Formats: sequence, structure tokens, C-alpha cells
Amino acid sequence: MTTTLTIPDLIRKKRDGAEHTRAELEQLVLGYTRGDVPDYQVSAWLMAVYLRGMTPQETADLTLVMAASGDQMDLAGLPRTVDKHSTGGVGDKTSLILTPMLAALGLTVAKMSGRGLAHTGGTIDKLESFPGWSPDLPEERFLAQARDLGLALIGQTKDLAPADGKLYALRDVTATVDCLPLIASSIMSKKLASGAHTVVLDVKVGAGAFMRTLEDGQALARAMVDIGTRAGRQVRAVLTDMDTPLGHMAGNSLEVQEAIRTLRGEGPEDLTELCVALAVEALVAHGEDEAAAEARARAALQDGSALAKFRAFVAAQGGDASLVDHPERLDVAPDRADVVAPASGFVGRLDALAVGRAVLALGGGRERKGEAIDHGVGVEVLKKPGEAVAAGEPVLRLFHRGGRGLDAARALLEGGLSVTGTAPQPQPLLLGRVN
Amino acid sequence: MTTTLTIPDLIRKKRDGAEHTRAELEQLVLGYTRGDVPDYQVSAWLMAVYLRGMTPQETADLTLVMAASGDQMDLAGLPRTVDKHSTGGVGDKTSLILTPMLAALGLTVAKMSGRGLAHTGGTIDKLESFPGWSPDLPEERFLAQARDLGLALIGQTKDLAPADGKLYALRDVTATVDCLPLIASSIMSKKLASGAHTVVLDVKVGAGAFMRTLEDGQALARAMVDIGTRAGRQVRAVLTDMDTPLGHMAGNSLEVQEAIRTLRGEGPEDLTELCVALAVEALVAHGEDEAAAEARARAALQDGSALAKFRAFVAAQGGDASLVDHPERLDVAPDRADVVAPASGFVGRLDALAVGRAVLALGGGRERKGEAIDHGVGVEVLKKPGEAVAAGEPVLRLFHRGGRGLDAARALLEGGLSVTGTAPQPQPLLLGRVN
Repeated sequence: MTTTLTIPDLIRKKRDGAEHTRAELEQLVLGYTRGDVPDYQVSAWLMAVYLRGMTPQETADLTLVMAASGDQMDLAGLPRTVDKHSTGGVGDKTSLILTPMLAALGLTVAKMSGRGLAHTGGTIDKLESFPGWSPDLPEERFLAQARDLGLALIGQTKDLAPADGKLYALRDVTATVDCLPLIASSIMSKKLASGAHTVVLDVKVGAGAFMRTLEDGQALARAMVDIGTRAGRQVRAVLTDMDTPLGHMAGNSLEVQEAIRTLRGEGPEDLTELCVALAVEALVAHGEDEAAAEARARAALQDGSALAKFRAFVAAQGGDASLVDHPERLDVAPDRADVVAPASGFVGRLDALAVGRAVLALGGGRERKGEAIDHGVGVEVLKKPGEAVAAGEPVLRLFHRGGRGLDAARALLEGGLSVTGTAPQPQPLLLGRVN
Repeated sequence: MTTTLTIPDLIRKKRDGAEHTRAELEQLVLGYTRGDVPDYQVSAWLMAVYLRGMTPQETADLTLVMAASGDQMDLAGLPRTVDKHSTGGVGDKTSLILTPMLAALGLTVAKMSGRGLAHTGGTIDKLESFPGWSPDLPEERFLAQARDLGLALIGQTKDLAPADGKLYALRDVTATVDCLPLIASSIMSKKLASGAHTVVLDVKVGAGAFMRTLEDGQALARAMVDIGTRAGRQVRAVLTDMDTPLGHMAGNSLEVQEAIRTLRGEGPEDLTELCVALAVEALVAHGEDEAAAEARARAALQDGSALAKFRAFVAAQGGDASLVDHPERLDVAPDRADVVAPASGFVGRLDALAVGRAVLALGGGRERKGEAIDHGVGVEVLKKPGEAVAAGEPVLRLFHRGGRGLDAARALLEGGLSVTGTAPQPQPLLLGRVN
């Protein structure tokens, strides 16, 4: 049966709370992507979706329609493929560590990554701290590298789920961004189009994250896992705290240095534990026993196998791999300034969003797509929440270049830091799992 | 205080169910009318209004903003001004009778009218059955005629509440038409911009009307009266049945003939009673006692004073006034065909919408703005609901020209007619009043 509903009929249907068929979603979303359906009809429909919601089946159908709106990566020729996605945080260098770990553990990571925007960093920006490293690989070379090395990473192309890009731009100007089925389908459409059998999701929760509460984070994780399951993929999510930055470093070269320390088995505990937890999810999704998976994951950081994969990966994409063994030679901004404790006590709040914005102010991120960034600037967290400090003792260190953006960055950090009289309740990093 | 909210902020506010200030509505609606706010933002906002609603104050503010979006007619120099609006029906020639009645009763009618669209007729189309009659008067002549004669009628200009026209066109393609505050503000914005002190509303309810149930009609009437009151006008509404056509005639010249019969005091009861009821509302709004007002209204139809006003009005706007005294000379289509009762019994349902569509099929209405129409075609209701009929006896008579559209019209009428074994419960025409 061919559909005879008009676009206003489809808007009316969602307006009245009914469930769309996949064919209806194709008519709307692919019509919009082609330019046949005008934006003023789609924005009315998006507001109806915002206020009426979508069923799990509808959300999965929408995601599949968006995933099929452009090119789809065919990874069927690769064994045990895995992809990872984080909903975005500050100081989140997890992908730098996790992807070589997974390759060392026998999985295949053929991954598309993005660049950073606003206060969140991007994996490609961090890797570009290695002079010569490039995410611009022809597809054949990308697939060959993934097959030979177990790890290859390219930039996201415009033709990956173009419906998502177009819908997101419209949502951004019509107050329809923070809508669970639309967020979940946006993320998952790109993951489905990227082709991996298994997807491990890190859903960030807290002041520095898009999802402010654990409840919201759980709902998003559940929606994404559900989409993946309905699409025939293995999707597993962990919920992690993003009230405070992950590890100690924020800023591109600084994060690469910390990632290398972690790959050597010398990383900060929170970052190490998160990488192990995500690796375990990936291995379990591929049928491994959980306890054995955890032991193997920890070993990969201790025995040098993950580090070796990282070295080979940097070299394979044109980067100066000698810096992996001499990370102190990475370009780090030469000037320093500290933010000190205003009183004696314990570090209470250390707001991840403030740290992310400070890096942006120093020139380490971009407000708009396409802007150049300074890889060397950043912020080091000298004392994490819960640690004792004396009045006047440095808590945060800024790495700047000639004072550029320093005053703004310092003001942001001072506003994001509190010192309390009593030690705050320690907050776990891992808040939950959804699969 | 100047507002600093962006358009997405305003959309978000309505999305979350909050109440807009008048300044916010100006920012949105006047920005859209000027072309500064894009349609895709306004359509998202309209859907939020549809699903979240508007408070009475918000609805009144929206109406005032739309009324002030273009030219506003200044009737302050005219005494006892009154305007009338019907929400649209089939065979509704009330304005042709009521407006000269009101002028004869000492009120001033300086009215803008529209043309018909789809199955509802327009007063201007009906008056154009008089050769030479024109609604195109310069404003000065329009006002002078209203002052001298008590009655003048012009076509609606584009500059009257242009925000309403633009919003309506967008609502039409985004499934946001049938939303009470938007319907009420659309109607009332044009009435407020038209300038009359008093507005009498005829809210049609039933199969041939936009409002299908009495409850919906009452809600619309209340919303419109509330807007008028908040805007400092006198607004009174009657709710009337539109399951079946008003009077016996549908079609332009046929309706003019029936209107003239009514102005002579020889009209059908339902039509006469509706005109009297609306005249009473207008007189009461101007401070008259209800019983005295009713007596005066009835007298205007009996003593020839309303008919004299009509004759003078037709002549003043260039029409051949001799036709008022010889309505049989109006151009009525020469060919006839009847729809007969399929069985003996009582006329049960006689669907107003079917009659309206039949007139349209015969060429007496237009599907799109600007189309020419045939004033002579139409439908006569020979037997009204409740009347006894014998099998094969004519119930409806079609006035057609050479069979054009006849088969379609006949099929529509046959589908809209039912004959029942028992007499149906008589249905009152006047269903309620709101003021």
C-alpha cells in the first residue's frame, strides 16, 4: 500500500500523539533532506515530537531513516568491530586510551571522530597535537589500516547521516534540542551509519555534561541502547560523572600527555578505571566473560601492548611517533599561572564546565566550526575535589601563551572552584550501566 | 526594561507552557510580518501554542498585536457603529438583511466583507449579483456613505491585519489551524482593525460549520467576547445551528432573492428569527432595552424601512436598484433538476456541507481565491428537515446552466439527504448567547 498522507497530515498525526510508521518518517525526513519538504513544516513537526514524544519503535525507525539518509560505512569485512561514543565532557581523553586498548585486545576499531566545539574537546583535535598526524584517509586505506592494525580513525564526512545534520541545525533555532528521542536518534544515526557491530556509550552526567541529572542520563542511555538493539547492533552504555574534569588535564597536548601516561599504566585512577570499564563493556558485547575481560583490559595498560598499538596508530596516520615515547616534547604553552585556594579546607566543587570554558578562553577550543586552535594551552587540576588544601596553595594551573585569554580563564576557574570546611562526600565516577 | 529574549527563548517559553507578555508577542508576530523572523521559527511556536494553549490575556494581547500590524479603520467620527461577523455557513445571507435593518434602526454599519471560499459564500459575491454594484470604494467615500446612509460595505484590503493573513497561511500548512486562541484572535484581529464599537458574532455550529459541536462553538464565542471586552469593545455572540442550510436558498442570486423577500417581511422563519436576534444583540449593546429592541427589529422588516435602506445601499455603490423591487429579474440559471425523496417519510438529515459543495460543483463558488463564479446557479431546499415527503417527491431543486457540474452536485445532495420513518426532533436555530 502506498501512503497518501500529506505532510500536514503527518504533522497532525504527531500533534495528536499518534505513532508514525517508518514509511511516514521516511516521507518527512528524507523529503526534508532532499529539500522537498520545507523547514517550516519540519519545525512544526519537531515541536510536536518535543511535546508529544516518540515511542521506542518510532525512535528506532527515525534513527534508521536518518542513518540511511547518506553514505553508510560498510565494516562487514572486518572482524569484531567496535565503536565508542561519549556524549561529551571536559578533559575526556578516553578515546585516546580506549581505542588502542581495544585494538590490543583483539577488537577492530574503524572509527569516525569529530572535532571539538564550545567547551568540549574532540579526539581529532587532540591527535593533531602530533605534528603530521591526519584524519584524512581515503576509505580504502582507512579499512586496510583497521584490518592490519585494528585501529584507524577518520574525520566525519558530510555525507554521514546528512538528515541528522540538517535536523540538528533546525532544532538549534527552534527550541527543540533537548528532547530525548531526538537526542538519542541524532547520536545513534551516526553510529549506525558508521557500521560497527558493537557500540560502547559513555553517557556523561553532571555540571559539565549535556545531561545534568542521573535520571536524564539513564533515560538517554536506555533510549540509545534500545535503538541499537532494534537495529540489530550490540550497544552497551556506562553512566559516568562529569561534575568535575576527568583526570587532571584539559587542553589538547596536555591531554595527550596524560593519555600516554595512562597507556603506560601510570594514569590517574578515575581515567584508568573508566577506560577499563568501557573496554570490559566492549569485550562482554563480543561474548567474553566479564572477570576475564577486566583482567585482560588491565593487563593491556600494564604490559605495553596498548601503548604499542597507539604508537603504531600515530605513525600509520603520518604522526611523529617518537613523541609517544617522549611526550614531554609535545608543544605545551610555555607560560604558567596558578589559581590558588581562597581559604584552607577541602576542594569542594571544581566545575567541569568552568574548566572547559577556561581552555576555550585560552585559545584551546573553538566557538565556531572551522576555527584554528592552540593545541598547547590548557588547565591542570592540581587538587581534585575532596583533597585538602591550605589557603594560598595552588589548586589549578593554567598553561597559556603570553597571557592570551588569561584573565577570562582565571575568572572562569575562580568562579568554578569552591573550598569547603569539611571534606565532601567522595563521588563515584561510574554511576551505572545500561545494556 | 527592554526585552533581551531571543526568538528561540520565546519559543522555549511557550513550549514550556509559560505566558507571553504583549511585548514578546510583538517581537514574534510583528517580526514575522516584517520578514525578520523566519517562518520555521514561527511554525514551531504555533505548534507550541497549539499544544500548550494561551491564557485569555495572552489571546487578547495577540489579537491586539495582529490588529495593529497594518492599517486600522478609524470609525471614531461615526455614531453608534456596529459590525457583524459570521463564522461561515451555507446559505447564510444574514448580512444582506441584517445590515440594512441595523441602518434603519439608527446604527451605523461601515463594514469590510470578504468573498466566499470553498463551500461558504461571501457577502460581496452575493451583492455582485446586482449588475454594477462594487465593493471598491475610496476610504473617504466609504466613510461619507456610512455617515449619510448608515450603511457602506467595502472589500477587505491586504493591509488589514496583515499579520493574520501571514500567520493563517503558515497555520494552513503546519496543522495548526483548529486551535481556539488562534481562531479567535484571527477573527477578532480583523474586527478590531475594522474599527466598530460593537461587534455582533454569529457562531455557527454543526455539520456545515467550522465548529462541529455546541461545546466548541461556545468556547470560541466566549474567547472572542473575552478578547473584545479586554480590547474595550462591546462584543455579543449568538450560537446558531448550521447542520442544515439557513432559509431555502443557496447560491448568490437565489440568496439575494430570498434576502429581499425577508426584508419585505415575507422571509422564511429561521432566517427572519436569526436576523431579529442579531439585531437585538446589536441594539442591546448600544444600551437599548431587549423587549423594545426586538419590537423595533421586527417592525423594520414589516414597515419597509430596512428594504428602503437596502435599495439605497445598492444604488449608492453602483448597483441596479430596480432589481430590489423586481428580484425576479436577477440572473438565475435557466435549467432545473430535482433530487427526489428515495422513500416516503420525513426529511431527516439535509447536510449543509453537501448543499454548499453542490453549489460549488455547479460553479457558484470558488476553490481558490480570484476565480470567477456563476452568480445564477444554486440549490433550493423545497422540504426542510422534519417535513413529510412522499417517495419520488422533489426535496431539492438544482439551478444549473446547461448541466455543468450537475452530476457531481446531484451526487453530493443525494449523499447529504436522508428520509426517515419518524419525524425527527425539531432542532432550534438559536442554540445560545454569549456576552
